[in-house]
Amino acid sequence: MTLSISEVNNLKSAPHVEGVLPIFHQRWSPRAFDGRDVSTADLANVFEAARWAASSGNSQPWRFLVGTRNSPAHAKIHEALVDFNKEWAGHAPVLILGTSLAVNPKTGKPNAYALFDLGAASSYLTLQAAGQGLVAHQMAGFSHETARRLLEIPDDYALGSVIALGYQGEPAVLPNATLVEREVAPRDRKPLSEIAFSAWDVPAILS
Amino acid sequence: MTLSISEVNNLKSAPHVEGVLPIFHQRWSPRAFDGRDVSTADLANVFEAARWAASSGNSQPWRFLVGTRNSPAHAKIHEALVDFNKEWAGHAPVLILGTSLAVNPKTGKPNAYALFDLGAASSYLTLQAAGQGLVAHQMAGFSHETARRLLEIPDDYALGSVIALGYQGEPAVLPNATLVEREVAPRDRKPLSEIAFSAWDVPAILS
Repeated sequence: MTLSISEVNNLKSAPHVEGVLPIFHQRWSPRAFDGRDVSTADLANVFEAARWAASSGNSQPWRFLVGTRNSPAHAKIHEALVDFNKEWAGHAPVLILGTSLAVNPKTGKPNAYALFDLGAASSYLTLQAAGQGLVAHQMAGFSHETARRLLEIPDDYALGSVIALGYQGEPAVLPNATLVEREVAPRDRKPLSEIAFSAWDVPAILS
Repeated sequence: MTLSISEVNNLKSAPHVEGVLPIFHQRWSPRAFDGRDVSTADLANVFEAARWAASSGNSQPWRFLVGTRNSPAHAKIHEALVDFNKEWAGHAPVLILGTSLAVNPKTGKPNAYALFDLGAASSYLTLQAAGQGLVAHQMAGFSHETARRLLEIPDDYALGSVIALGYQGEPAVLPNATLVEREVAPRDRKPLSEIAFSAWDVPAILS
């Protein structure tokens, strides 16, 4: 199972559909990183994309904590990960923690769209990463409590994902066989008929 | 204030940044639609993109209710909108309500990433719409209670945005001056320094 990067990317790319932008089918979430760092200019571009996401009332509630290799933020975000993620994600040159202002700053009321909007901005970020030759892997597998404490996140910010960002490595660099196996497993999604329909429990209008 | 579609799109497009995919800067959220319907094939493509979004544990919790013009679902989604949105969004040939399974089907426990993941899939959908010559406008301005009741959404699904989808129209087709004014107003986002930083309350690492 020693696939090259291009072999694994061919395997992971979703089947092309005429008219759909290739970026949606090509993006996936590798765990293997090579040793290269991400330049500040390249890092800025993934946030430049995130910046233009849509949000409720254009509130732009997203705030990203960014840890580059050997920085205190990188160590703290890494520390908050569950063991399974700690093992591989520490090799990513950039670890990002997505947070979102969960109150409306004008009214003080809860912002029910804080995580929805952060999910949007985080997906702009990861799609742009794929588009500029980087890879990104989002994780929910981390302790929110540890992350909040170590990174001193104010209470009014909700936590989203940790994003490992860097240049893709060969599957063989991963530290154990389970991770290598996952890295080369086919991707899987529900068919359109299960996610889009004209009424609940009624046959889909799309197939 | 009678801008053409291409004039308003030039105005709304964010400044190009070298290396950033144009789609992130070109996508915006128009309210003016022309009279054309969206074919089933074109409609399928926006969900094809959404289908490949990342989600926590690949749970793919998103379910989209799709109302095409003159359908019961279109009328029900329209009915749930606040008055401000009702006025323009009824002209969209497609109204979509995004929902997300808020429990883990394996464990029965709450899925804290339901809305985060729906936000991701909804942004894939809207980016793909822009990429295939459609426009999409997401709204939080609707009654969740009314939508849930009229569309019989099960309790374990959380509601995200209503998405108006169709072909862009000239600003002049909008039904009142306030809407026309908004349609041609410049877009605005926080600078990178306010959304990405290496520690809370510490100068940004990006500018």
